[in-house]
Amino acid sequence: MPVVVQNIERTSLQLVDGLAKSGVSTVHEAQGRVGLMQSFMRPIYPGGRIAGNAVTVSVAPADNTMIHVAVEQARAGDILVVAPTSPSDAGYFGELFATALKERGVRGLIIEAGCRDIRELQEMGFPVWSRYISSQGTVKETLGDVNVPIVCAGTLVNPGDVIVADDDGVCVVPRHTAGDVLAAAHAREEKEANNRARFIAGELGLDVYGMREKLSAKGLKYV
Amino acid sequence: MPVVVQNIERTSLQLVDGLAKSGVSTVHEAQGRVGLMQSFMRPIYPGGRIAGNAVTVSVAPADNTMIHVAVEQARAGDILVVAPTSPSDAGYFGELFATALKERGVRGLIIEAGCRDIRELQEMGFPVWSRYISSQGTVKETLGDVNVPIVCAGTLVNPGDVIVADDDGVCVVPRHTAGDVLAAAHAREEKEANNRARFIAGELGLDVYGMREKLSAKGLKYV
Amino acid sequence: MPVVVQNIERTSLQLVDGLAKSGVSTVHEAQGRVGLMQSFMRPIYPGGRIAGNAVTVSVAPADNTMIHVAVEQARAGDILVVAPTSPSDAGYFGELFATALKERGVRGLIIEAGCRDIRELQEMGFPVWSRYISSQGTVKETLGDVNVPIVCAGTLVNPGDVIVADDDGVCVVPRHTAGDVLAAAHAREEKEANNRARFIAGELGLDVYGMREKLSAKGLKYV
Amino acid sequence: MPVVVQNIERTSLQLVDGLAKSGVSTVHEAQGRVGLMQSFMRPIYPGGRIAGNAVTVSVAPADNTMIHVAVEQARAGDILVVAPTSPSDAGYFGELFATALKERGVRGLIIEAGCRDIRELQEMGFPVWSRYISSQGTVKETLGDVNVPIVCAGTLVNPGDVIVADDDGVCVVPRHTAGDVLAAAHAREEKEANNRARFIAGELGLDVYGMREKLSAKGLKYV
Amino acid sequence: MPVVVQNIERTSLQLVDGLAKSGVSTVHEAQGRVGLMQSFMRPIYPGGRIAGNAVTVSVAPADNTMIHVAVEQARAGDILVVAPTSPSDAGYFGELFATALKERGVRGLIIEAGCRDIRELQEMGFPVWSRYISSQGTVKETLGDVNVPIVCAGTLVNPGDVIVADDDGVCVVPRHTAGDVLAAAHAREEKEANNRARFIAGELGLDVYGMREKLSAKGLKYV
Amino acid sequence: MPVVVQNIERTSLQLVDGLAKSGVSTVHEAQGRVGLMQSFMRPIYPGGRIAGNAVTVSVAPADNTMIHVAVEQARAGDILVVAPTSPSDAGYFGELFATALKERGVRGLIIEAGCRDIRELQEMGFPVWSRYISSQGTVKETLGDVNVPIVCAGTLVNPGDVIVADDDGVCVVPRHTAGDVLAAAHAREEKEANNRARFIAGELGLDVYGMREKLSAKGLKYV
Repeated sequence: MPVVVQNIERTSLQLVDGLAKSGVSTVHEAQGRVGLMQSFMRPIYPGGRIAGNAVTVSVAPADNTMIHVAVEQARAGDILVVAPTSPSDAGYFGELFATALKERGVRGLIIEAGCRDIRELQEMGFPVWSRYISSQGTVKETLGDVNVPIVCAGTLVNPGDVIVADDDGVCVVPRHTAGDVLAAAHAREEKEANNRARFIAGELGLDVYGMREKLSAKGLKYV
Repeated sequence: MPVVVQNIERTSLQLVDGLAKSGVSTVHEAQGRVGLMQSFMRPIYPGGRIAGNAVTVSVAPADNTMIHVAVEQARAGDILVVAPTSPSDAGYFGELFATALKERGVRGLIIEAGCRDIRELQEMGFPVWSRYISSQGTVKETLGDVNVPIVCAGTLVNPGDVIVADDDGVCVVPRHTAGDVLAAAHAREEKEANNRARFIAGELGLDVYGMREKLSAKGLKYV
Repeated sequence: MPVVVQNIERTSLQLVDGLAKSGVSTVHEAQGRVGLMQSFMRPIYPGGRIAGNAVTVSVAPADNTMIHVAVEQARAGDILVVAPTSPSDAGYFGELFATALKERGVRGLIIEAGCRDIRELQEMGFPVWSRYISSQGTVKETLGDVNVPIVCAGTLVNPGDVIVADDDGVCVVPRHTAGDVLAAAHAREEKEANNRARFIAGELGLDVYGMREKLSAKGLKYV
Repeated sequence: MPVVVQNIERTSLQLVDGLAKSGVSTVHEAQGRVGLMQSFMRPIYPGGRIAGNAVTVSVAPADNTMIHVAVEQARAGDILVVAPTSPSDAGYFGELFATALKERGVRGLIIEAGCRDIRELQEMGFPVWSRYISSQGTVKETLGDVNVPIVCAGTLVNPGDVIVADDDGVCVVPRHTAGDVLAAAHAREEKEANNRARFIAGELGLDVYGMREKLSAKGLKYV
Repeated sequence: MPVVVQNIERTSLQLVDGLAKSGVSTVHEAQGRVGLMQSFMRPIYPGGRIAGNAVTVSVAPADNTMIHVAVEQARAGDILVVAPTSPSDAGYFGELFATALKERGVRGLIIEAGCRDIRELQEMGFPVWSRYISSQGTVKETLGDVNVPIVCAGTLVNPGDVIVADDDGVCVVPRHTAGDVLAAAHAREEKEANNRARFIAGELGLDVYGMREKLSAKGLKYV
Repeated sequence: MPVVVQNIERTSLQLVDGLAKSGVSTVHEAQGRVGLMQSFMRPIYPGGRIAGNAVTVSVAPADNTMIHVAVEQARAGDILVVAPTSPSDAGYFGELFATALKERGVRGLIIEAGCRDIRELQEMGFPVWSRYISSQGTVKETLGDVNVPIVCAGTLVNPGDVIVADDDGVCVVPRHTAGDVLAAAHAREEKEANNRARFIAGELGLDVYGMREKLSAKGLKYV
């Protein structure tokens, strides 16, 4: 049953890099407020903003076997996305893995479990979004899967989907919609630039978004 | 039923600014160890220390309608305090709101829910204490209330109460006791300065606080 | 029943300092993946890495009496380890305690409860690993114990055990095994240096750790 | 500062008993979807449904002093409502307290902390809604307050407010609105009885509540 | 964007009913230890054991609009599976919905949110597995989807998948593998019956499963 | 390193059975309010009350190998106490294990992880206290230890310690103090019987425990 899918379709890095620039909150809104991982997924250090193609990894609790397998499948522009088959806070990932992945041009890691060597990862500039920080060691006993659809932090991730991650969290953009989402993100940024100018000029959201009449119709009373 | 109270009594900014200087831990102790919000309320970036008059906002889950309404009610020296009517980690608040509020002289946001645009908020220096960080988008469908008494993170907040927030957490000082609390905070600071000097001189808390006899009477044994 | 044990056996500071250099993740692995405190124990500010002899403190919920008692028992090279008898997020510890402990050469605090004065502690360079950050004041009413075995964050700590703490978490090394663990840590570091060189040279973990045959035998399929 | 308010205004037991009959979900809806305690408040055994006048108790963590004080203030038709000043799961309450309260005609206990003697309480028929079940013993050292406004499980409770509790949770009805809420509850029950008949007859909520047109206008597509 | 898919392929009720008989733990094992919802999904009353075809519902936080829409799409042998687009503990579902669904032959509800009218649902025998129990009322403002793939409690659910639920939790069996899983479940039951007989006869798992040699090879020491 | 200790000293079953009769809350108080496992340890069905000698089991996450090993070490009057080396909610234990243990006279299971086959365990009368209920299957790959000291649910358990468990939770009594604790429990029961009579007669705790003077001295005000 355990399987490694070797040839996956990826999203073009031009689209991927465009989505990175827009960032998680804009991309999440632009694709209709879906695809956001749960809010317990946090960066191990602040300031990172990346996007990449998902290489998905399903692992046993406290067992990092399949991350070793996944490294071989990863290439420049990828992001590893790891979820355990039952909850675990073990420290699956540290600086040796990051060293190997960086050599291959992998951009970062998303893991619904624990990560360690925080200080070293920050020094080498390898960004990780994880549920936990933990030194807890793992074993190499039980197989899993690489590049099959997984659920990570409450969100479905297919291999080759685009992952966008920054200080606001982690968002998944399905591969076949990445172009449309990027266009929508750009449209949203333009609209927000206009709104920002109006806010700076002292206008209120109530007017910018035309809310007053609707609020009144719904029965809001000022006293 | 949904209501916006437009004229609230505020605490003088002189008192407010005095409380900011003392900080959360001192103020909380000075008013008898009450009024502290639950410890899951954390700053989205470190180093902020503010105080201000509470403009309270009761919102529906994942609906930011009433924050737009509240912006209009806020003025220089205020702090928005937002609580949902049932738990939500949605990202109600981002840099556009902060831009509008900063224009009005509002000092920060306290929200028992999610906040987004973390990096941008830190860059523009608009401090937020929230329960979650999340990009999750919100809708504008359901009314709520502005400037009514609310419970935020386990603590009662009346409009015009003083909010003090720093890296230690968030504390609420009822408006009519703000003067007394500030005086008590100053008294406490003076006492602590004396104690600090004694600790630096090598004295022990057991002696500084006169605890030895009491401990012995309660039955503490040294072996 | 409440007791203060005054003369405890400590681990030599040479061993202690050696363990600090290796850090939590290496030490935890080197002693067989045990002794790690639960992952909710986090540093109140990043970048610290310490080791020291445990002075253990069992406290009542929201009562810091016994920390005052423990200060007197602590000496240069020690770390205070504090656990409440039932869960509490109160802010037991702040800068006055840290001032007194720093005078005595104590290196830091581990507390499965709350800590306050975060900014001040960072400024004075007194590192703390805690479960919570909270200003909540404590009382001085109920006795506890100093230097008895305690369970802190899921881990047994005997007085005089070595505590290692850094950005990855907190690890306990039993006193009588500290020498062996340090030797094992050094061996591990050497092995990891070799592996790191191979990873930088582009080798894969699958080969470095000789995993391919085992994976195949367990039935992993590449498709 | 610690205070016991001896004479509080209570709600008439006729209103209280009427609210008990309607139950938590109906009462909560009837008063506009507010006043519900957080969902972690659960009955220690199923099947209870009570209402009563709140006698409020603010206690120190793991300290049951003030419950002893509150017993004296409680009378027939009351419900004790207990909240700690900082979080605690200690077992503040057991069958001896229940024995004393039952003698006085008190109807039950609401506590945002722990309760013990579960089996005995069920056998004697004294219902409790608590956040935790725990044997953890408490001390009698620190004062608190009786019959002052408190926040319990996220909800403001004033002494003399009506508490309604059943298998669905716990709801607080402010004293001065109890009559209106009871009337609204009865109206709601009548409306629901009509709707129930229509559902049994095979009608759909989409028609009973006239939702089809609105859904279509909002853009719902059937495919 | 919001959509209701009206014609979904379902699994034959013969397969569905076979899976119900095997129960969650056996089915989960039989399909390779996958498909289990997170362990916070609990029955609102004990003793239920059902299986059915999934009608999936994606709802806004604290908004039950789409459950009304879903009722019309449900038929005999179905189970409603509901997940909010961001976390919510609101009480989306009560006895009126259950009355309507029971009329249609729907077998139960799975909801990663809150449920109310617990006592009434138990009396009418409509089983629910939920994350929370809560009276918190919901609104009818925001659209969602019916019969699209959703993630519920960490597990992907496609419309027409088989849901199995009992006191052990909730498991999802993909529609196209239901036959194979049922066969594997039966094989497992047969094997377990044999093992049970051996355990009753006093044999040990170490021998029944042939573990002794393997344990010895891995280095287990008896002292 | 993994080890099975075969000959442990046990507490006499006469003492054990005496402690069972007193129950968790009384025993916990009688030994000075220590030894209670964390409150998340709950019975999988209500009404059980057992005591027994601890056979301790340290297991890898989601791996039940060592429970098989422990069965062989268990005898009449024992209770298995299982803790994972890092957090896991997997369903380590079900009715086949219970069948084997019941044959050997083992009285129950304490596990800081998941349990399954809830309905079957209740029917066969094998009581379990667990942190989770979950069907999640486990593997048999990684060794652990039997009958070494472990930390389970925050409490140190040595092999041969007495475990007492009922609806209130789980308590550990060190083997060498079991006799003293039983005597103290009986003394406490006698005292409580007297107090109960006084409460039934209408006396108040304030008088039964002589609290009035102390409260007044501490500054309690009646208004």
